[in-house]
Amino acid sequence: MRMYDLIARKKHGGTLTKEEIAFMVEGYAEGRIPDYQMSAMLMAIWFQGMDDEETIELTKCMAKSGDMLDLSAIHGKTVDKHSTGGVGDKTTLVAAPIVAACGGKVAKMSGRGLGHTGGTVDKLESIPGVRTVLDRQKFLETVERCGMSIIGQSGNLAPADKKLYALRDVTATVDSIPLIASSIMSKKLAAGSDGILLDVKTGSGAFMKTLDDSVKLAQTMVAIGEGAGRCTLALITDMDTPLGNAIGNSLEVMEAMDVLKGHGSADLTEVSLQLAANMLCLVGKGELDECRGMAEASIADGTAFETFCAMVREQGGDDSVLRDYSRFPRAPYQKAILADADGYIVKMNAEECGIASVLLGAGRETKESGIDGSAGILMKKKYGDKVSKGEALATLYTSREESLQEAERMYRDAVTIGSAAAAPRPLIYARVEHGKVEKYREERE
Amino acid sequence: MRMYDLIARKKHGGTLTKEEIAFMVEGYAEGRIPDYQMSAMLMAIWFQGMDDEETIELTKCMAKSGDMLDLSAIHGKTVDKHSTGGVGDKTTLVAAPIVAACGGKVAKMSGRGLGHTGGTVDKLESIPGVRTVLDRQKFLETVERCGMSIIGQSGNLAPADKKLYALRDVTATVDSIPLIASSIMSKKLAAGSDGILLDVKTGSGAFMKTLDDSVKLAQTMVAIGEGAGRCTLALITDMDTPLGNAIGNSLEVMEAMDVLKGHGSADLTEVSLQLAANMLCLVGKGELDECRGMAEASIADGTAFETFCAMVREQGGDDSVLRDYSRFPRAPYQKAILADADGYIVKMNAEECGIASVLLGAGRETKESGIDGSAGILMKKKYGDKVSKGEALATLYTSREESLQEAERMYRDAVTIGSAAAAPRPLIYARVEHGKVEKYREERE
Repeated sequence: MRMYDLIARKKHGGTLTKEEIAFMVEGYAEGRIPDYQMSAMLMAIWFQGMDDEETIELTKCMAKSGDMLDLSAIHGKTVDKHSTGGVGDKTTLVAAPIVAACGGKVAKMSGRGLGHTGGTVDKLESIPGVRTVLDRQKFLETVERCGMSIIGQSGNLAPADKKLYALRDVTATVDSIPLIASSIMSKKLAAGSDGILLDVKTGSGAFMKTLDDSVKLAQTMVAIGEGAGRCTLALITDMDTPLGNAIGNSLEVMEAMDVLKGHGSADLTEVSLQLAANMLCLVGKGELDECRGMAEASIADGTAFETFCAMVREQGGDDSVLRDYSRFPRAPYQKAILADADGYIVKMNAEECGIASVLLGAGRETKESGIDGSAGILMKKKYGDKVSKGEALATLYTSREESLQEAERMYRDAVTIGSAAAAPRPLIYARVEHGKVEKYREERE
Repeated sequence: MRMYDLIARKKHGGTLTKEEIAFMVEGYAEGRIPDYQMSAMLMAIWFQGMDDEETIELTKCMAKSGDMLDLSAIHGKTVDKHSTGGVGDKTTLVAAPIVAACGGKVAKMSGRGLGHTGGTVDKLESIPGVRTVLDRQKFLETVERCGMSIIGQSGNLAPADKKLYALRDVTATVDSIPLIASSIMSKKLAAGSDGILLDVKTGSGAFMKTLDDSVKLAQTMVAIGEGAGRCTLALITDMDTPLGNAIGNSLEVMEAMDVLKGHGSADLTEVSLQLAANMLCLVGKGELDECRGMAEASIADGTAFETFCAMVREQGGDDSVLRDYSRFPRAPYQKAILADADGYIVKMNAEECGIASVLLGAGRETKESGIDGSAGILMKKKYGDKVSKGEALATLYTSREESLQEAERMYRDAVTIGSAAAAPRPLIYARVEHGKVEKYREERE
């Protein structure tokens, strides 16, 4: 078998067999196939795509290239969640404790923020004392005890994907649906859960800017998950506008806790409940509407919130801050941004809002950058809201006084005030099962 | 400027500016741009192509990456010829002395054979004593004295093309018209002639298997040549069937000399005269029909033959072999291939005929292989001919007795005898000028 022939076949639109994909992934991971041949193949795939069988095989091979987590010691069905990344997306902090409170097991490895999007591990670490590096034993014990544990990605997970991603990153071959889908899913397969819920973001702040592409990505990932024997579902959710009212690590934790206490922002509450209900479906807790009822009940009776607090304690954190937010470290500089006109918010570019928060210290500009847990933005007015000149649009929080001006300018660029009210936008666009796309629209309030 | 952005632009079908192409070619030649980025770019070009401006710039940059030959010491206009490679293609040995005899100057660097196609330098070296490595001074002097010189490619000609070609060769990106055209033309521009005649072969034995692709390649090369200020023309000639009756180095020299003496095979004579006439047009010797007349006259009066003999002597060779072929070294083993049925030759696969000759020792299987000047095939029956069972189709010549059987099998596979006469095939399909394709068909006799 020669890599040359595989490149030539793919270039002409042919398909690769299972054996050929294994030859390619193993050969590349082990250094037998050089970067220059793999990058030619990646570009050929960018143009010609891969069918579901090829994509499933690619994903499996990448997953098998490193550690495959064994979660069988956990009693009950495990369910994982993946978000393609957004601004203000703190849904894991809400949905995971709801699922755990309702009897699902969430053994979750999360990422850190990069660029304009945040990461769950950074958010969690803004809670004083919380450890996100646990050994395998402690991770499994925490899931057993609390029903959930969220840690950083550890171990040697899908190293072939890591090597391939680094090559895609420098050869302009990142934006290919089969390559994105296989990259995400290889880590999810290796992470070992029985069920996988995918939150595919769509809109200006998302990696997928159009609904069509988002649905295609979701379908591909669901096909991979199901093809690899995992129960898999996806929701397509809006990321044209930031989710909820807070951007920034501890600000987002507080907002998530508000939802768990039953008085969170409407959009975050709705998306989190939908995600949690679908995760409960995946672990066999009932039909979607029953699961939704269970999820709502776990908020109403406080068990979801207590579950999260228990996990925080188990992982070394101080859960008193979750009950009394004034105990969170506070950003020394704050600045209100006031509306410069009367009207309605007709556009709120999520990516630009995210960049403004990074300028304040809430995110990383490079992988090596540090992060400020207390920095960020609290939005007072969101898409669709009526505003009066001089009214506060948002408050900026930072430890870097010098960055306030640029962050304000960026935030003002992100927000457009128009004279007429904008049409409501959906929060959730579709639910994707294997072989089935159900489009529906929950309007933002 | 970042290579990443150029790849991304090309991938989406955009065009690259002159500055960007220069950045890319220089950066790659000098090792600043890694192979893996260049191979992704090559694959993107394979899919998206390049427009004429981009292709011209790419070619110029590759030409400028090494030595640019200065032929200004030669009095009169210089003209080069390039064939995309064929089986039995000895037209340079005929057309170059015709052009020189008529006052054009041919300062030609030729290649060696590889795979199933032969190379002019190997053919020339089958003449005892001929040197094909001359220093620049001697090369120019030979052109001044004889009107022509043919030597092997020397010096540091288009090293960027060399590096790029090696990468294309292992990444399945050879078969792209702008890349093929720029690769060929970069060496032609560096070789310095005022005019360039391109012989683009089409058919089973050619790199371009279809007429459409051959015309496109010719158009692209003509656009490059003209864009770089060289008078450029192309002929599309048949290579579905070997050209002439001989395949193999000294056998081809003899056949070429027969043409120069006025009694060569009809197809080779016709193609060579057309090529020579077009080369004469390129150096301003008159309209095509006048040039054709001059070319025919140079055969009739013996000046073309004497010109070739003079060059052979000037380059150290023994031209007596050209007057008395029995003085050529002779292959020790010969074998006639007899027709196994009555009928007509309806197919004669040029590539397979070429491979049979390589088996006999006439060509190279790898760049390092040696070559046998006397080995090859003399074809007695060609496409369209009537044959009777037991009649000789061809004679094989070799120093390797053990290869006769396999070569015979290959040759028999190449030749199909049918019951009805095949339709005549054109020898020349089209003439391509800048912005103009003139289709015409000289039928094979």
